[in-house]
Amino acid sequence: MSDGAVSRGLEASGEKCYSFAFMDSGFKAIASGTVTSPQGFRAGAVSCGIKASKKLDLAILCSDERCVAAGVFTTNAIKGAPVILSQKHLQDRRAQAIVVNSGCANACTGDMGVADADEMATLAAEKLSISPEDVLVASTGVTGVALPMDRVRVGIREISITEDEGHDLARAMMTTDTFAKETAVSVEAEPGGFTVGGVAKGSGMIHPNMATMLCFLTTDAAVDPRFLQSALQQAVDSSFNMVTIDGDTSPSDMVALLANGLARNKTISDGNGGVFQKALHEVCLHLAKCIARDGEGATKLLEVAVEGALTVTEARLAARTVAGSSLVKAAMHGNDPNWGRIVAALGRSGAKVTETRLDVYLNNVCVMRQGCPVPFDNQKVGASLASEEVFLKLNLNLGGGKATAWGCDLSEEYVTINSAYTT
Amino acid sequence: MSDGAVSRGLEASGEKCYSFAFMDSGFKAIASGTVTSPQGFRAGAVSCGIKASKKLDLAILCSDERCVAAGVFTTNAIKGAPVILSQKHLQDRRAQAIVVNSGCANACTGDMGVADADEMATLAAEKLSISPEDVLVASTGVTGVALPMDRVRVGIREISITEDEGHDLARAMMTTDTFAKETAVSVEAEPGGFTVGGVAKGSGMIHPNMATMLCFLTTDAAVDPRFLQSALQQAVDSSFNMVTIDGDTSPSDMVALLANGLARNKTISDGNGGVFQKALHEVCLHLAKCIARDGEGATKLLEVAVEGALTVTEARLAARTVAGSSLVKAAMHGNDPNWGRIVAALGRSGAKVTETRLDVYLNNVCVMRQGCPVPFDNQKVGASLASEEVFLKLNLNLGGGKATAWGCDLSEEYVTINSAYTT
Repeated sequence: MSDGAVSRGLEASGEKCYSFAFMDSGFKAIASGTVTSPQGFRAGAVSCGIKASKKLDLAILCSDERCVAAGVFTTNAIKGAPVILSQKHLQDRRAQAIVVNSGCANACTGDMGVADADEMATLAAEKLSISPEDVLVASTGVTGVALPMDRVRVGIREISITEDEGHDLARAMMTTDTFAKETAVSVEAEPGGFTVGGVAKGSGMIHPNMATMLCFLTTDAAVDPRFLQSALQQAVDSSFNMVTIDGDTSPSDMVALLANGLARNKTISDGNGGVFQKALHEVCLHLAKCIARDGEGATKLLEVAVEGALTVTEARLAARTVAGSSLVKAAMHGNDPNWGRIVAALGRSGAKVTETRLDVYLNNVCVMRQGCPVPFDNQKVGASLASEEVFLKLNLNLGGGKATAWGCDLSEEYVTINSAYTT
Repeated sequence: MSDGAVSRGLEASGEKCYSFAFMDSGFKAIASGTVTSPQGFRAGAVSCGIKASKKLDLAILCSDERCVAAGVFTTNAIKGAPVILSQKHLQDRRAQAIVVNSGCANACTGDMGVADADEMATLAAEKLSISPEDVLVASTGVTGVALPMDRVRVGIREISITEDEGHDLARAMMTTDTFAKETAVSVEAEPGGFTVGGVAKGSGMIHPNMATMLCFLTTDAAVDPRFLQSALQQAVDSSFNMVTIDGDTSPSDMVALLANGLARNKTISDGNGGVFQKALHEVCLHLAKCIARDGEGATKLLEVAVEGALTVTEARLAARTVAGSSLVKAAMHGNDPNWGRIVAALGRSGAKVTETRLDVYLNNVCVMRQGCPVPFDNQKVGASLASEEVFLKLNLNLGGGKATAWGCDLSEEYVTINSAYTT
């Protein structure tokens, strides 16, 4: 892989987790870091019975101080009620808490869904003694089904909020995720250090329904509101927006970032934002790669690097198309060095491609150079594909555009998960 | 399904076939109709050893007279050598023969591939005593591997061309297609009747490589060259271009149409082309639906009709996106009336959608009306999805745009077929 810094470990719980040893000097990964690692953030989670499994399904994340806040939301024309509410509550670029549930997406639920999302915000605000307009709401799970508000009301009342419940919040967001996705990094910056933390959930479902990607980011840095939004958008564009599991996007996708300023640093903005931007990017990238690695039915992480495109936009388009191709993904599942499919996916991506300039590499072995097949050891390359991480590189040799996308293989298990008849 | 005219039968060979009883008066489906049904078309096929299986793998289709010809080719930026050669040979809108092989796509093969495609045209032309510029070449199969030209040379020499070998040509094009796709229709038009025939192959591979769609159409009608091209493009847009198997497009995709004029009808052009356009559309639609039905691993045909879009273009986009969604396809495989996925796919299609106007139907049962869930009998609708044909309808209620797309379910078998390690 392009970064050798991802190491795999096992938590005491037996769940998989992937910790990131940040390589950049000045950045330090926090052991068991999570969304409550930055100063002044607390969380709590309960099992209120939305999920039949009795697993954690309702949580609150909150800050001791009102935060500068930013959000990036689904581009789907169909938006869940929580997305619409959270967008409204972020208009003033301020927020203080997020209430989240799994097991029910509260999407395609009409006027009742809007009222239910509104009530969730109100109940959380009352509990925290803050304004409902400072509460964001996120829901993931079944679509077209109303929230069991009786259980949600009891659940919000019963949540116990503490400084070290970030891990439980990460679990309360999960649907068919096989491991919790969380990390935090501390930054020794001049003037004043700060911490960035985050949790995410990826492609999964509790009943077979659309995948929802949720991510909540926190920082104790003081950040200018406009800069915070642009920094988040930029970080999302090169991380979550470069992940593809199956091409479907959800009405519930949401990334929210709260900055409470308790680090008492000099306010970060355009002029001095480089280190913050980099830290935010690293946290998002780590969580994004966790989502790709944990795609439904996935057995491996697929990294596709495109170089030499005419523009960055075309490089992103090309990398995402290759990483999202069902035929490429199925070949990678079978450890098949079937590069014709990679070239075919590139060719339909919309990026400018000149066949006679194209170089293609599988796990750093060149299989096509300037449009011509290069003989290679099929057995050896096939064996190298039988690992947890596969790296494809395409050099278009046309310009300076570079981008990397992440995905996963396509397994029979993906189909099994998504075709189970449950109703 | 929207047309009740598709009936299923079994040929003597035991292969599946789907015959089309054309409903329009004046159109008559020809029993066992194929690409050599129109007057003056002949074909022949051999097994020359490109396929290890010794199945038919090389064929020639030719007309007694030089034809007015039209073609529609892959939009992939990477084009196989046969595509480039055939586009060149069609510049004068004339052709007389097509030489086709399966088992090797002759794509991503550099200068040698160009020379090989050229030699195939020359060898076929010499055999038929016609100009090489009047020969089109089509190849489907493994990518990045050179054609075994020694076998192709012997094979072209040994092909025996007769009036009733259209069925063998249909088989010689197949890769992992499970049944031959062919049909013909006779049209009693004033002045002068004519016949339109066609063969196609769909998503399949001999070694796991990209799917290639090939279709050859013939007619004995006399048709104006420019009208022929526009009629073909129009027929393709509403048939083959509305089929999605897995979203991947091949460097080898090709639809070619030869019109030899032996019906001695008054030349068909813009002014009198309606009936010809309709017949061509019906033949293309039948072959396109056969391709969808025979998608790799498919167990059912999926038809997605979109109504009430702002424009036809948006309706096509919406229908194709829903038919191509992995999550929708997996749900249909599991007979799961999981309409949230349909709405989510529609929402990311790019077509204008207003949630509060949207109606959704599964096999004609309304599950969402004006954006709200409609209670329905899950068991009953689920049971209705357990058939060979599933019909989804979405009414956007915004305008007059209508379109229908065809696809298939996503099965574990698709992944198994496409991940088999063969090198």
